[in-house]
Amino acid sequence: MQLLNAPGTRDCLPDEAIARKRILDTIKATFERYGYSPLETPAIERFDVLSSKYAGGDEILKETFRVHDQGQRELGLRYDLTVPFARVVGMNPQLKMPFKRYQVDKVWRDGPISKARYREFWQADVDIVGCAAMTADAELLMLAVDVFTKLGLVPVIRVNNRKILEGLAQLEGLEDKKDAVIIALDKLDKLKREDVLEELAGITGKDKAEAILGRFTVQGTNEQILDALPQDNELLQQGISELREVLAYCAGADNNDKQSIINTQSTKDKHLANNKHLANPIVIDTTLARGLSYYTGTIFEIILPGSEVKSSVGGGGRYDKMIQDFLGGNQQFPAVGISFGVDRIYDAMGGADKKTTAKAYIIHFKNPQAGFDLAKQLRAAMINTDLDLVGRGPSKCLQYAQSQGIPFVLFLGEEELAQKKVRIKDMTSGTEDTVGVADAIARIIGSQD
Amino acid sequence: MQLLNAPGTRDCLPDEAIARKRILDTIKATFERYGYSPLETPAIERFDVLSSKYAGGDEILKETFRVHDQGQRELGLRYDLTVPFARVVGMNPQLKMPFKRYQVDKVWRDGPISKARYREFWQADVDIVGCAAMTADAELLMLAVDVFTKLGLVPVIRVNNRKILEGLAQLEGLEDKKDAVIIALDKLDKLKREDVLEELAGITGKDKAEAILGRFTVQGTNEQILDALPQDNELLQQGISELREVLAYCAGADNNDKQSIINTQSTKDKHLANNKHLANPIVIDTTLARGLSYYTGTIFEIILPGSEVKSSVGGGGRYDKMIQDFLGGNQQFPAVGISFGVDRIYDAMGGADKKTTAKAYIIHFKNPQAGFDLAKQLRAAMINTDLDLVGRGPSKCLQYAQSQGIPFVLFLGEEELAQKKVRIKDMTSGTEDTVGVADAIARIIGSQD
Repeated sequence: MQLLNAPGTRDCLPDEAIARKRILDTIKATFERYGYSPLETPAIERFDVLSSKYAGGDEILKETFRVHDQGQRELGLRYDLTVPFARVVGMNPQLKMPFKRYQVDKVWRDGPISKARYREFWQADVDIVGCAAMTADAELLMLAVDVFTKLGLVPVIRVNNRKILEGLAQLEGLEDKKDAVIIALDKLDKLKREDVLEELAGITGKDKAEAILGRFTVQGTNEQILDALPQDNELLQQGISELREVLAYCAGADNNDKQSIINTQSTKDKHLANNKHLANPIVIDTTLARGLSYYTGTIFEIILPGSEVKSSVGGGGRYDKMIQDFLGGNQQFPAVGISFGVDRIYDAMGGADKKTTAKAYIIHFKNPQAGFDLAKQLRAAMINTDLDLVGRGPSKCLQYAQSQGIPFVLFLGEEELAQKKVRIKDMTSGTEDTVGVADAIARIIGSQD
Repeated sequence: MQLLNAPGTRDCLPDEAIARKRILDTIKATFERYGYSPLETPAIERFDVLSSKYAGGDEILKETFRVHDQGQRELGLRYDLTVPFARVVGMNPQLKMPFKRYQVDKVWRDGPISKARYREFWQADVDIVGCAAMTADAELLMLAVDVFTKLGLVPVIRVNNRKILEGLAQLEGLEDKKDAVIIALDKLDKLKREDVLEELAGITGKDKAEAILGRFTVQGTNEQILDALPQDNELLQQGISELREVLAYCAGADNNDKQSIINTQSTKDKHLANNKHLANPIVIDTTLARGLSYYTGTIFEIILPGSEVKSSVGGGGRYDKMIQDFLGGNQQFPAVGISFGVDRIYDAMGGADKKTTAKAYIIHFKNPQAGFDLAKQLRAAMINTDLDLVGRGPSKCLQYAQSQGIPFVLFLGEEELAQKKVRIKDMTSGTEDTVGVADAIARIIGSQD
């Protein structure tokens, strides 16, 4: 047997697992703050559910891990959290609408492996089904801003509406080439303008390509960008009006009646990144397409311009048809959701933490009974506490506590025991004091570490 | 496509997921209180790791879900959290010993399905590796008592030592039939005494079977049971001395120098179950065997005598050879651990919770902007808050809030807005008041619900 992980999977040792847990706990608490409830679905799904026409599509299906049980049933590991969500909605007609749920869980994709791409990874999804109103889209944007703020990060959310993209294609008489146009536009944040122009020209001819791209070079505030868009068909009118409504709710909730002063082109600029006092982190970006997925209205993508992480750390949008198509039948299931990229957020947060959450380590000079008695008092005061279990000498114990980054060490020698005191060492400052147990507890609880 | 879960898997809707999350959060927080750090390992492992001779064994291997990637590699889903733990220890020689880790995660077994047995289920494991001293065994027992106490449950932990079982087998000249004897004894908590006697007699002959069973009918305190055991060989002496040491640490930490007054036979009695003031929840039970697993010393099993759940809700023991055998090589890895049965604890806690953790629901009479503004204030005060996103009438909104079990509803009509107040309805008592927002927040935070 070789001691190896399966390809594309990895372990998270405590320093990484502690940092991840802190992030996930913050994300989950914020989801609940906005009235979203946890939903759990199994990792294993029937393959025919995963491979349904209206589920992930061919590309993703190739990357689905196949699982077989003893009965040789065709099963698979989920590749996202949206298909299981749609299945649960279909199987539980008793659910009250709107149904606001979150799921923070692992998904699996058997794709190419890279440093940033694993085959087993976390997703954090939050969705509302059963609400066609733009209030739902707005609430999710506010929630996203709050999640990143709580994590100490400064997000910018690029927002667009699929109806605007489709309306523009219609306006140029390109309805039959709509998908190809959207795919080309979707590359604007990765390729140079002239390369996208060339790709577009191959689809639409040079003149139309220029005209379409011209629509996406408007500079100005959110309001100015919306004002500059043509309103020549119903799709454009609807898309613009929906965006205005979403922006108004978000701006209002920020006690900020004016639109953002940020224009599309600058959202990726460095200088913006360092401005921690953005008037409005939500910026309209008409170049945003979000691939060929099932979105029908609002779409958005979250970036962290001030961070080392250049790719998006979350995104989503409105998908009013997907669940109905997936389930069949006449009932409509308008929905909107966000997926947060947990691994990228972890990178943006600076990676690993300490190796333990313990705040105190007890060195008891081979008197474990006394050590346990003191540990009991600290733990009762909700202090995460470790102690010498092996019976080592004090200097080895001290090395161990230091290697784990534990901020306080408590010595419990014969003298301290006789006085009913402890000697407390602050591992950051190096200072030592002999104090009563209650004082030691107060000092540990009062410390910032 | 049929809308079905894969066989033996299930969804947890919010009412169940909320209750489970609360339990798992309590378990994890208690693990960290005792200085254990989280470790994450992937669901997918190489099949040769899972099928190693010293891993789960043949029985469990039959129940391992096979996974294939596009490269047709032989992979599988983990069936426990111990094999991945051993692999991580082997792959990370930089880990400082003792290494105290926990992992709360799903495992998969493709076995027979019943109402109580799923193919995808949670395990909550806590282990120490690198400590041969009985302090580790004692700490885990104290931790287990604390976990259940924090959950509001009253545990009894049956404790034994494998060396005592093996020493007794040796004493009766049954070393070659040791495994069969242990398997027979392991059935004492499920079968009648005479049925176990018959099975034993088939192995050892009637006289010896009587003699062996006679060893397990001692009544009395922990101390009396230990005193009554023969000490005729080294295994017995070691087992008894180890148990005494573990009990002394646990009793001391309970500020309780006397041994428990509870005898073995009564641990499963109803009247005991209702006694919430157990002097010592840790009781010696020399009938405990814990199957044919890899245990080498202390073994234990946790029951909840006062609960509807009759099977054990956790168990574990010391396994000083397993990791070394698994890894090969000369380095010793003494270890001890507990696995908590999350599904049974969930049942013992009474099952599902409310459908949402929201404490407040805002009805804004089709003024979503005002609703969002109030929601923002409540959420900033850390109150989980939901509001009408659909734009329904007040009575439909009220029905929705009631169906979700949300304890407070806030009405925000024109009159309230003009007065900068809200009307707050306590959904439990039915009382209504018009108050300022700060008062409403204080009332919600101050409520018990």
